[in-house]
Amino acid sequence: MFDGIFHKLQEKKPYVHCITNYVTANDCANIVLAWGARPVMADSVCEAEEITAGCDALVINMGTLSESKISAMLIAGRKANELNHSVILDPVGVGASSFRQRAAFQLLDEIRFSVIRGNASEIRTLYYGFGKTKGVDAGEKDKITEDTINEACKTAALLAKRTKAVIVLTGSTDIVTDGKTMYLIRNGHSSMSKISGTGCMLSAIIGVLCAALNEEPLKAAAAGTVLMGLCGEIAYGKITERKEGTASLKIHLIDAIGMIDEEMLKERAFIEKVRKEYGEDE
Amino acid sequence: MFDGIFHKLQEKKPYVHCITNYVTANDCANIVLAWGARPVMADSVCEAEEITAGCDALVINMGTLSESKISAMLIAGRKANELNHSVILDPVGVGASSFRQRAAFQLLDEIRFSVIRGNASEIRTLYYGFGKTKGVDAGEKDKITEDTINEACKTAALLAKRTKAVIVLTGSTDIVTDGKTMYLIRNGHSSMSKISGTGCMLSAIIGVLCAALNEEPLKAAAAGTVLMGLCGEIAYGKITERKEGTASLKIHLIDAIGMIDEEMLKERAFIEKVRKEYGEDE
Amino acid sequence: MFDGIFHKLQEKKPYVHCITNYVTANDCANIVLAWGARPVMADSVCEAEEITAGCDALVINMGTLSESKISAMLIAGRKANELNHSVILDPVGVGASSFRQRAAFQLLDEIRFSVIRGNASEIRTLYYGFGKTKGVDAGEKDKITEDTINEACKTAALLAKRTKAVIVLTGSTDIVTDGKTMYLIRNGHSSMSKISGTGCMLSAIIGVLCAALNEEPLKAAAAGTVLMGLCGEIAYGKITERKEGTASLKIHLIDAIGMIDEEMLKERAFIEKVRKEYGEDE
Repeated sequence: MFDGIFHKLQEKKPYVHCITNYVTANDCANIVLAWGARPVMADSVCEAEEITAGCDALVINMGTLSESKISAMLIAGRKANELNHSVILDPVGVGASSFRQRAAFQLLDEIRFSVIRGNASEIRTLYYGFGKTKGVDAGEKDKITEDTINEACKTAALLAKRTKAVIVLTGSTDIVTDGKTMYLIRNGHSSMSKISGTGCMLSAIIGVLCAALNEEPLKAAAAGTVLMGLCGEIAYGKITERKEGTASLKIHLIDAIGMIDEEMLKERAFIEKVRKEYGEDE
Repeated sequence: MFDGIFHKLQEKKPYVHCITNYVTANDCANIVLAWGARPVMADSVCEAEEITAGCDALVINMGTLSESKISAMLIAGRKANELNHSVILDPVGVGASSFRQRAAFQLLDEIRFSVIRGNASEIRTLYYGFGKTKGVDAGEKDKITEDTINEACKTAALLAKRTKAVIVLTGSTDIVTDGKTMYLIRNGHSSMSKISGTGCMLSAIIGVLCAALNEEPLKAAAAGTVLMGLCGEIAYGKITERKEGTASLKIHLIDAIGMIDEEMLKERAFIEKVRKEYGEDE
Repeated sequence: MFDGIFHKLQEKKPYVHCITNYVTANDCANIVLAWGARPVMADSVCEAEEITAGCDALVINMGTLSESKISAMLIAGRKANELNHSVILDPVGVGASSFRQRAAFQLLDEIRFSVIRGNASEIRTLYYGFGKTKGVDAGEKDKITEDTINEACKTAALLAKRTKAVIVLTGSTDIVTDGKTMYLIRNGHSSMSKISGTGCMLSAIIGVLCAALNEEPLKAAAAGTVLMGLCGEIAYGKITERKEGTASLKIHLIDAIGMIDEEMLKERAFIEKVRKEYGEDE
């Protein structure tokens, strides 16, 4: 499934428009650049449409949300849809306030997304339409364990069917599904939850891949998720060896993305394909 | 004084709502996460109240201030007060503009703070209500030296009495006081002034500790200040050894916070308790 | 040409007001601090004038532009002009939207700039007044090669004459000109294009130097450009040696700025002075 993705990326060097939060914007820009693609961060309603038109994909990230950002997201999203660009949604902390929930539902109503990436709490909130969570991390009851993974897979699959987007639910096991095919990905390392922005960076990487692979969002989402997990594993290896902490982990993680090649991705991917139909009435 | 703080932190893993500047937001989020707590960065008036209600403490940082942020700070601050959450104020550059001064005085009027942390210029501006300073760093005349430390202690103590908040005045010697008990802390290293965000990060850490220790702001502020100083010492040791510069210093500093334990904190704390009454008429 | 610049910097430790984007604000603050100067990041119209008045130079960076930032830029710019402070313009992505173009032309109309720094696409857009480019990086056709360097030199020289500002056009070869004297600088390394913020950081450094050298913008711009290139070379050397990636490159780059001295700058500068008159009718 990873055949030729690095080649396509190098060939296209896609421009990715990110309407994103100010906490992790720098990390997102740097990981996109590190991988040979070109980030454009712009969130004003005065230029959202034009910037998106000049790019190849749009990543909408709901961190540090404001009313004016929502307007820019809607304008850019409509334009991207009109031009058939991939649009990725990262519903950061969508369960943490009704403001974010309303914004997310308006975005889902008006914009067609290729991929939606969130943690278990965020994906649950999008599917069930409520469910107050604290903060921006997955709540304790939403942690992916052997007991909860079936429920999480079902929620992801049903949200995929309803939204016609590929759903990426990230956790100790990552779930990637278009509602029919489902991948379980067991790359990554728990230490990644100790740094800010791994989710945001993954969403940006998926945006790059969607633009490079054109119309293959399931493949783009799965490859991006494996890639990010692998970067985390490599970074964790480095900090263990060097007795370093979490700030170093982030540096090594961004460093790693430029070092992974197709061979390595194939060899170290811990990805399993699952086929199971999920219906609303199950 | 440091007994059990790591245990309480691990047990509670507090959520800390930060209304903060976009320059150091990433560093603040990362140091809070590195320490096992959970940052939530959100500054829109549309969600400030709800986000704060879902968290355990609120940190208000006045860097890159705007009118809409001030409104969010007031809304969140009132809610946090109502719920008896700890509220921390970091009056970044309060002497640099009358806009920031007015905002700070409005915040002090309407919100009850557990801890206020600033450099000597900022604390002086809050106490004397005027005193134009340049930029966001302590002015030359406000540097803490053997000659000025008594004056600085007095200003901190009087501001503590007036605001009923614990005051943390950071400099070459850090002063922590509730107006009665006063701690002088001599951890840290001068190289820390060569990186952006050490003050902001300390304020966020104090927010974490206030939430974890519940109702012991003096202890939380003193422990946080020692901790941050120690991280700086460890980081400085590393860059000296490796012949590195200031960007590495920041990485090692955030790395260090995950490596310090109670033992180390007790052993290496350079903290002195002073008892002296300060009256307005001295 | 580098005589005494470190001494003047140490003596003055200038305050630099940056109205800048939230993607690279942290890097800009850190590189300014690393070099012994003092950054003040503030972008509200409510304090732009007062903050600028308290600083020694103003850097206007058009990344993540918004209407309210433009207002702050105009207010601060007028005040800085009135006080004869150096004002630096970094027209990030000016060709990427008509919103940014209109803003840039309004700034050029109303504010007198000491230095304007951009890539080839940005400088072309400022000179020709149109020319749609994608994103914020130099477009393929604008890359500086042996074939295009003459054209780029001419555009820079003519823009310098028209705006009476020193123009810094950065690329594989950097061009620095006041319309009469022209420097070609061949320091730096191509890997620098894989990290976000090298241009923004250079603009901030030029602001520091303009304030330190007072009224010698050509020298300040050339020295800053050599310095940044050298930092990039040193950083690239480190990541090659240590087999690291682009996040480490940025860390080493900021680290390097504190390690370069006058001797080193003179020895390793790869700068050539060119005299050639460029007229509009050529």
